[in-house]
Amino acid sequence: MTTTQITLVQIDNYGPWTVTPEPRREVDLQTLQSRLYADLCQQIGREDGYVFFTRFDNMIAVTNGLDRADHELIQESIDNRYPVSVSMGIGSDASPRTALVDATEVLQTAGSAQDGARTEILGGEVLPEGERTTEDVQIAHFDVIDVTGTYTDRVDAFETFIAIEQGYAALMRYLYEEHDSLSFFVGGDNVIAACPGLSEPSYEDAISHVSGEVDVDLQVGVGRGSSAHDAGMAAKHALEECRHNGTRVERTATADD
Amino acid sequence: MTTTQITLVQIDNYGPWTVTPEPRREVDLQTLQSRLYADLCQQIGREDGYVFFTRFDNMIAVTNGLDRADHELIQESIDNRYPVSVSMGIGSDASPRTALVDATEVLQTAGSAQDGARTEILGGEVLPEGERTTEDVQIAHFDVIDVTGTYTDRVDAFETFIAIEQGYAALMRYLYEEHDSLSFFVGGDNVIAACPGLSEPSYEDAISHVSGEVDVDLQVGVGRGSSAHDAGMAAKHALEECRHNGTRVERTATADD
Amino acid sequence: MTTTQITLVQIDNYGPWTVTPEPRREVDLQTLQSRLYADLCQQIGREDGYVFFTRFDNMIAVTNGLDRADHELIQESIDNRYPVSVSMGIGSDASPRTALVDATEVLQTAGSAQDGARTEILGGEVLPEGERTTEDVQIAHFDVIDVTGTYTDRVDAFETFIAIEQGYAALMRYLYEEHDSLSFFVGGDNVIAACPGLSEPSYEDAISHVSGEVDVDLQVGVGRGSSAHDAGMAAKHALEECRHNGTRVERTATADD
Amino acid sequence: MTTTQITLVQIDNYGPWTVTPEPRREVDLQTLQSRLYADLCQQIGREDGYVFFTRFDNMIAVTNGLDRADHELIQESIDNRYPVSVSMGIGSDASPRTALVDATEVLQTAGSAQDGARTEILGGEVLPEGERTTEDVQIAHFDVIDVTGTYTDRVDAFETFIAIEQGYAALMRYLYEEHDSLSFFVGGDNVIAACPGLSEPSYEDAISHVSGEVDVDLQVGVGRGSSAHDAGMAAKHALEECRHNGTRVERTATADD
Repeated sequence: MTTTQITLVQIDNYGPWTVTPEPRREVDLQTLQSRLYADLCQQIGREDGYVFFTRFDNMIAVTNGLDRADHELIQESIDNRYPVSVSMGIGSDASPRTALVDATEVLQTAGSAQDGARTEILGGEVLPEGERTTEDVQIAHFDVIDVTGTYTDRVDAFETFIAIEQGYAALMRYLYEEHDSLSFFVGGDNVIAACPGLSEPSYEDAISHVSGEVDVDLQVGVGRGSSAHDAGMAAKHALEECRHNGTRVERTATADD
Repeated sequence: MTTTQITLVQIDNYGPWTVTPEPRREVDLQTLQSRLYADLCQQIGREDGYVFFTRFDNMIAVTNGLDRADHELIQESIDNRYPVSVSMGIGSDASPRTALVDATEVLQTAGSAQDGARTEILGGEVLPEGERTTEDVQIAHFDVIDVTGTYTDRVDAFETFIAIEQGYAALMRYLYEEHDSLSFFVGGDNVIAACPGLSEPSYEDAISHVSGEVDVDLQVGVGRGSSAHDAGMAAKHALEECRHNGTRVERTATADD
Repeated sequence: MTTTQITLVQIDNYGPWTVTPEPRREVDLQTLQSRLYADLCQQIGREDGYVFFTRFDNMIAVTNGLDRADHELIQESIDNRYPVSVSMGIGSDASPRTALVDATEVLQTAGSAQDGARTEILGGEVLPEGERTTEDVQIAHFDVIDVTGTYTDRVDAFETFIAIEQGYAALMRYLYEEHDSLSFFVGGDNVIAACPGLSEPSYEDAISHVSGEVDVDLQVGVGRGSSAHDAGMAAKHALEECRHNGTRVERTATADD
Repeated sequence: MTTTQITLVQIDNYGPWTVTPEPRREVDLQTLQSRLYADLCQQIGREDGYVFFTRFDNMIAVTNGLDRADHELIQESIDNRYPVSVSMGIGSDASPRTALVDATEVLQTAGSAQDGARTEILGGEVLPEGERTTEDVQIAHFDVIDVTGTYTDRVDAFETFIAIEQGYAALMRYLYEEHDSLSFFVGGDNVIAACPGLSEPSYEDAISHVSGEVDVDLQVGVGRGSSAHDAGMAAKHALEECRHNGTRVERTATADD
C-alpha cells in the first residue's frame, strides 16, 4: 500500500502582485515563474522528491523524504531571493488525491490566495521517517509511442502539440476521477503520475481510454520506491523496456508482488 | 491585417541525450528545461518578442522584431552555456498557423529531431524591418472569471487544475482549427494566443464554445501592436477592463477600426 | 582616441536589506548576487557590452552600444524579478577613469547608497550612436604565463590563489594610477582592463611592474573596437598569439597605427 | 579545537574548453561561471556549508556536514545541466590550510587540471558524522568600518574598489601565512575567513597589520559552530555587535571559553 506525501506550494498574493501598480512585463513573469520552479526542483530533488510546475503559482510536489524543517529552509531561501514568498500545505495519505485535498485545506483554512496578510503559511501532515517503506510511492511515466516518427518529424509543431495536449487532458482527468492519481505533463511527450498502488489492468484501462477518446497512443513504465526519485527512476527504466519489447505497460517487480 | 513572425525553437537530439548512457535524474531535466526557457524569455523579450514553453523541447515564439542575427546570437549563447544546442526555424505570414507550418518545415527539411548529425539549423523567413507596421501582431489574453473565488479558495488544487487544463485544451484546439490561432497556457489561469486580425464576435464565439464544452467561463483582452510585447501589454490592460466592467471581451482600439 | 562609456550599477539600499529584520543566510546572498550579475552579463552582452562583478553590490560595465532606453529596460526587468532594485549612473570620456568618476557622481548626487528613499536612479552621459567609431574601446586581456604548469598542478589551491590575487591587486592599482585604466579579475587567472589608447610600452611597463613587485609573470593581448565585445574578442585572439609566439604583449592592428 | 572539512571544486579541462574551437564570448563564460557558483551555493548551503567563488574555475568550500554521497549528487547534477563537469577533492584537518593542501593533492594526484581524460574525480577525507562537534568550525566575518560614509558616498567607485581590494589582498595573505586561515572576498566590503581556533589577539593583530600596510580599517565578528552556516551566522551577529558597540573585534562565547 502506498503512502504519498504531497506538498502544495502556492505563491502568496501573486495575482495582485503581477498587476500592481501596473501589469508587469510578461517575459519577466515567465522568467520569474520558471526560475522559481527550477529552484524548487533542485531543493526538493536534493531529498529525492519530485515537484511539478502545474500552474506555476500553484505547484504540486511528491515530498516523501522532506520533513518540516526541510520545507522551512526552502521557504526562507525563496523569501531571501525572490520578490514573492510562498505558502506550503502538506498532506499524507494512501491516496495521492486525498493527500492533496488535505494539503490544500491547510492553505484555504489560513486564508485566501489573494489575501495580502496571509504569507508563508507552513503546516500539515508529514510522513514520519520511522514509518517510511519502499512501497510508499508509485510513479507512472507515460509517453506517446514513437512521437518523433508519428508527429514531430511529420506534422507542424502545433499539430503535434495539440495531440499531446489532448492526450494529457484526457489522461489526467481519467486517472484522477477513476484512480485517485495526480498526473503532470513534464515536457516533450512525457506525463508523470503519482498513483496509489495500481496494477497493470488499471494502466491498460487508462491507456485504452485515451486512445479511444482522443486517438493518442501511450505506453507506460511503472515503478515503486520510498521516494519519488526512487520510484520515478524505476519507472523510467520500465518505460525503456516498453520501447525495447514493444509493450504498452511495464512494471518493475516490488514487494507487493 | 496581421503579419506574424513565428520562430520554432527545438532542442537538438534531446530524446536520446536524456537517456544516454542512462536515464538522467528527472529533477535535473526539469531544471535544465525551465532555465533554458527562462533564458529565452529574457533574450527574446529584449527585442519585445514573446516565447512560450509549449513542450520545453519544442518552444514556439512570436518574434516580430528579431532578425536573423538576433537568432544567431541566441543560438551561440545557448551553445556556450548548456549541454545541448538548439535549432530554429522562422516563418512569417498573416496567419500564425501558417507561419508555424513554415517554421516547422525549415527544421523537418534539414533532418529529424533525433538525428545526432542535425544541429543548430537556422533558417526561414524574417519579416523585414522596413515592412513592419503597428498592426502586425494581435495578442489575446484570456483568463478564468474569478478563478480565486470560484476555484482556488474553494476546491482542492487538482480540481482547480483540471478545470483550467480542460478549459485550455478546448480553447487551444478550437482557436487553432476555427481561427488559425496559436494558444499557450502561461501559468495561473492565463492563456495567451497569437491571432490573425480577429474581431469581437470571433472571441465571443470561442468563449461560448469553451463554456459549452467544459463549463469553464473565460474573459479576454485583445491588443494590437508591431511586436508581441506591445500587443500583449495592450491585451493585459484590456483584460483589466473586463474585470472592472464585468464584460467578457475587451479590445483596445486600433487603426483597423 | 578612445571614448569609453562606463555604467556603474549599484543595488539600492543593499546593506540594510541584508540584515533586516535579521542577517540573511550567507549562501542566499551569494546566490542572489551571482545570479543578478549573470543576468546583467546577458542583458548588457546582448548589445555587445561587458559587465564586471566588481563588488557585486556595485558593478562596473563598459556599455558602448547601450542607450538610455536599454538601461531602463534592464532596470525594469530587475525590479520585476528580484527583491532589490538598482540605480545606474553613466559616464562617457576618453579616459575610462574619468568616465567612472562621472558615472559615480550621478548616483552620489542623487543620494546615499544606503538611503532607503533613493531608488532606481538613472542618468548620465550616453555616447550618441552617430558619434561611435571602431576606435572607441580598448580592451586588454591579461593572464598568468603557464598558470597550470607553474601553480595549479604544483602547489595547493590557496597558494595559487594568493599569487593571482597579489598579481591582480598590483596590476589594478598600477594601471589605474599610471594609465587611467579600470581592471577586473574575471576568473581563472584572467584580468580584463578597459584602457585609454595605450601603446605596447605602457603594457610592457605594467607587466614589469607586477613581476617586480609580486613576482607574478603576466602576458597580455590588446584589442580595439566600437564595443567591449569587439575589442575584447580581438584581445582574446591577440592573447592566443602570445601563447603561440611566446611573447608578452600582442596587439591587433588598428586604424590608429 | 577546530576540525575544518574543506572541499576544492575544480572545473575539468576548463581552459581548453573556453577556447575550443575558438575563444567563446566573454559574457557567456561569466554567466556560466556565476550560475554554476550560485548552484553550488544552494546545494552546499542546503547542508549548512559555505562555498566561495575564489577563481570560479577553482572554488573552495567549507563542507562540514556534507558526506561523500552529498558530493556525488552535486557532481551528477552539474554533469546533467552544464557543458562542463567538476572534480572534487576533500580534506579534513584542525588547520583549514592543511585541509586545503590535502584536498588539492587528491586532484593533483589524479591528473592535470587541463588533462582532457581526467574528469569527475571525487576523493579525500570526510569528517565522520559521529566525530562532529560544535567547535569544529570557526568563521570570521570582516568588513570595512563605515565603508559607505568613508568611501561609497564620497570617492568614485573604483577608488573604493581599490581600497577594498588592497585591504583584502593584505588580509588574505597575512591570515594564511601567520594563522593558517583561508579568507575570501564575498562582495560589498565583506571578507569571510575559515580559521583554526584563533583568539581575539590574533584578530586584533591581523586588523592592525592591514591598517598599517594599506590604511584600510577593518572590524570583525567571530563565531563557532558545527557547520560553516552555524559559525557564520554567529559571526554575522557578532559583527553587528561591533557596529553597535564601536568595537573592532567581537566573538560569540563558546565551549572553548
